[in-house]
This record gives sequence, structure tokens and C-alpha cells, in this order.
Amino acid sequence: MTRGNAALTSWRDGDAKQAILEFVQRASAEVPVEERVAVFDNDGTLWCEKPMPIQLDFILRRLAEMAEVDPTLRTRQPWKAAYEKDYGWLASVLAEHYAGDERNVQVLAAGILAAYDGISVEDFEAQSDRFLREATHPTLGRKYLRCAYAPMVELLEHLADHGFTNYIASGGGRDFMRPVSQEVYGIPRERVIGSTVALEYRSDERGGTVIHKAEADYLDDGPEKPVRIWSRAGRRPLLAAGNSNGDIAMLNFAQHPDKPFLRLLVKHDDNEREFEYVSGSEQALKEAEHQGWTVVSIREDWSTVF
Amino acid sequence: MTRGNAALTSWRDGDAKQAILEFVQRASAEVPVEERVAVFDNDGTLWCEKPMPIQLDFILRRLAEMAEVDPTLRTRQPWKAAYEKDYGWLASVLAEHYAGDERNVQVLAAGILAAYDGISVEDFEAQSDRFLREATHPTLGRKYLRCAYAPMVELLEHLADHGFTNYIASGGGRDFMRPVSQEVYGIPRERVIGSTVALEYRSDERGGTVIHKAEADYLDDGPEKPVRIWSRAGRRPLLAAGNSNGDIAMLNFAQHPDKPFLRLLVKHDDNEREFEYVSGSEQALKEAEHQGWTVVSIREDWSTVF
Repeated sequence: MTRGNAALTSWRDGDAKQAILEFVQRASAEVPVEERVAVFDNDGTLWCEKPMPIQLDFILRRLAEMAEVDPTLRTRQPWKAAYEKDYGWLASVLAEHYAGDERNVQVLAAGILAAYDGISVEDFEAQSDRFLREATHPTLGRKYLRCAYAPMVELLEHLADHGFTNYIASGGGRDFMRPVSQEVYGIPRERVIGSTVALEYRSDERGGTVIHKAEADYLDDGPEKPVRIWSRAGRRPLLAAGNSNGDIAMLNFAQHPDKPFLRLLVKHDDNEREFEYVSGSEQALKEAEHQGWTVVSIREDWSTVF
Repeated sequence: MTRGNAALTSWRDGDAKQAILEFVQRASAEVPVEERVAVFDNDGTLWCEKPMPIQLDFILRRLAEMAEVDPTLRTRQPWKAAYEKDYGWLASVLAEHYAGDERNVQVLAAGILAAYDGISVEDFEAQSDRFLREATHPTLGRKYLRCAYAPMVELLEHLADHGFTNYIASGGGRDFMRPVSQEVYGIPRERVIGSTVALEYRSDERGGTVIHKAEADYLDDGPEKPVRIWSRAGRRPLLAAGNSNGDIAMLNFAQHPDKPFLRLLVKHDDNEREFEYVSGSEQALKEAEHQGWTVVSIREDWSTVF
């Protein structure tokens, strides 16, 4: 744990660091400890989401495995793209999505939901745990487990040191992140909020098993994020940090008439050390300007990224 | 907090108390602290559920208020029963439910869902908080806030003293219990699992509002309980305590091949100090016998009830 002057050493002096330090100082002095709740998006906010979200790599490997076993899948999307490592198809799906065409998104989603149909929650976590520890980022050349942003991990520690309860409020899969959230972020599994497939309890002689079904339960993104934060934490957060349009509602939700609050938007503007992109964050960057959110420039504000 | 020999003073010496003390001792010695998870049903397990669940009283008062304002509701169920205090109709709905006829249950449910349509989560909690502090149990002559079972509160404290993380896993409304869970049970709001209506986020200039919709999200009962426990805690509990058929799956779920575990079933057999009933618990009592769950007899095992 970093403490006192040692806190936020990967942050350069500037408006963002200053805003964080002032907010934490005020909140610690003015807000009862049980109300000090902070929520963080994960992909692109706490760890790297390019060239593709880490979980998508995990799922594509599983789809490729399925096509390895069953050749009939090799001509069907998304198994075909996964099997052929055709990232062009995946990029086109994303481009179509941003253009408002959801047809191939649905094809991809159906494959994602089928990938772990019937698996127990324990077995699923064992697989994601192994993947996150063993797999390497395709361009950064570091293990996925080392793709968390050092300044954000320091921020989580700084908040925890000041009595904050940190939650991950991710659009990504809740049970995908849980096996490593404590180790990577110091956030225990019960404080990981994220998307999930529908789960079902099947009784058996070993106490029953909770299994994944091939249908979505909910997508923890956009206006669903405040709903899920309320459902889990039962509180309106004092601090919310995100990086994309899907985080706008969550950042708005961190507002109080009578308490200090802080909204952070991570801006990916460092092609040298990480990635440079605004796609998917256009609205959020506009909102940041209109609403006075604190923009965190990776290039300017972070002396170290990883 | 009760500690050491002072623990469980409202429990009489006997098999149930012995089983609890031995389990807690073993779990504390053998299981890492983060895995010490205990889950408790609320109505009939932690507090009194007769002559009707406390939340039903809360809702009936709201329905009567609505009929007070709008006379056309006075001829429609369930507003009619609420307005006329016709508990006979409610009892018949329950009897029909146990006989497998769900038609009037749906009539009642529709009224319950309509009762708080559009209210913000903060306003809803303010109302349930006020109700729980001000209203009095209809036959016990004590405030609802004083209707928690003293031996179970001692058990919660004993577990917390030994590093356990306690959750409420109730079929009742999550947001109904949250305002008082810390005060009554020492369980913070983020560890209250329970049923909920669907929620919706509506943006506004004050950070947006999460509101109740007039539709169910899920009912945290039966096989849904293990699913919700996993979703929230991310762990299979070591201890589960319940009292009714709706708790069977949850009690089954608290089973481990390699760790100590305990299942408690509260038996309502004390008509003098509380209530005597088996309706709704028939299957659970049978399972307790078959599976070796620990039955807690209110009459035999508790020296004090409230």
C-alpha cells in the first residue's frame, strides 16, 4: 500500500492529480467512511482494452478450440473468424456497431453466449484465471495480468487507504474478472460488478451447481451501470472513473448536492506507450467538457503507464 | 459484540448450540478468512414473519393509502382488501398458493408492483425506514424493529467476531431491508441480497435517478437463492440458515467436499413466545431429516426469543 507522500507516484503533477488529492482529502474529512464508495469501469479505465478487450481474446480462443473439435463450425461466424484468426471480420463488426448496424454484433454475441453454455461457475473461473495468468498481450508483449495501469492501481490504493470501498463496474464479464481482481486491483470478488450470462442452479448430491446458460442476463453498460451499482452497493458513488460512452450514465450518477464528488475520464492519447483512440468515447469526451469532469490524459498525466 | 464465553447467551445448551460452536471453531481454524461466508434468510429466520411478513404490512398500508386517495381502487383487489383490512382475503390467497392456484397471487403481485411504481430508490428507502421504526407488530406489541430474534443476532455477532462475512439472502425486498440491516443485524446494505422490482436509470440534472418500475426483476427464492448468492458474493457459503421450503436450495448449496459447513433450519414450534407453524416448511423439515441439517427449535433451543 502506498501512503502519504508516496501516493500516486506514477501521476505527474497537474490538474488531474491535484483534483484527486483534493477530493480524497475533502471526502475523508467530510463523508462518513461507509459512504465513501468509488466505482471504476475496467476495460480502458483500469486495464488496456486494445487491440481488443482482453475477454474477447479469451472467448475467441475458446471458439477456435470449439472449431478445432467440430469442423462444421469452421464455416460459421464467429467460429470461422476465431479459427482463421480473421481479426478483420471482428473489426468490421465493431465498425458496423458504431455505425448503428447490429446484425453482425448479434452473430458475434450468439457465439459468445454459446462458448460456455452449461459450464459451472467454478470451472469458468478456473479457465479465465488460467488464461489471465498465462496469455500475453498481442502487441505490448506483457502478460495480460500486467496490463493494468499502474497509476490507476495507485489510485485504488490511495482510496482504500482513505477508507474508500472500491468497486469495479465493468461492461465486461463479472465472473471473468473475479479470479484476479483482488491480486491486480485489491478489489475482492464480491465487489466486482459486471455483465453476466443468465445463471441456473441445478441440484445434485454435491450441494448443487450454478451453471452458465446460453443467454444474456444483462449488459452492465450505459444506463444499466447506475442500476447495477445501486443493486450491489446500495449507494450513489462519490467517485466514478470511466473512459467511454458506456460510462456516461455512471459518471453522471456520481453527483451529490451536499458531498464532495469526482468524475474521472481516462483519455487514450498516447500511441507510444499505450494506444491513441477516441472511437467509442466521442460523447463521453464532449460530456466531460460540458459537465466539468476531470479528464485524465495518459500522455500528460501519467509518468508510467504499466 | 459478544465475545468468547459471552457468545450465544440466548441459546440453551443442546445439539444446535453445540453444532454452531464446533463449526465456528473449525471454520476459524481451517478456512481462510475471505472464504468464511454465511447467508441468512430473513423472514422467519432472522425476524418474525407471522401473522404476515413485515413487508406485506408495509405494502398493504401503501395500498390502503392509494385507495384513500382514489375511491375507484376500493372495489379492486388487492386495494379492496387493504382498504377494508380484510386479512381473510389475503389468507385465502396464501392458502390457494399452497394448493398450487396462483391466480390470486398474481392479482396480489400486480398490486404490490403498482404500489411504488416510479418512486426513486432513495424515497422508497426513506419510507421503509420510517415504517420499520414507527410501526408496531399487530400481536406481539413490539416495534417491528424489535422483532429480530435475539439468538440469531447473537449468532451473526459470533460469526462476525470469527471473521465471517454475513449476508442476508431473503425472499423479501432487498431495498426494504437495507435501511435497517446494519442497525438490526450488523449487516451493511451492500450485503443484503433479496428480491427486487426492475429498476431504471433516468438522467436529470442532479446526477440522474434510479426508479422502481412496476415489474418484477427476480424473486430471490428457491433455486434462485444460490444464483443470487453467487452473483453477489461470488462464493459458495460455509453456513446457510433458513426456515422454509424456499430455503432448501440455499441450504443445499452450503456444502463443501473439503471444508467445514453448517446448515441451520429454524423450526417455529413455540406458540407461547412466538408462533407455531409448519405451513410452507414441510419439505424443508423433511430435507433436514434426510440431509442431517441442524434443526433449531425455538421452543427448545432459545432461552430468549426477542
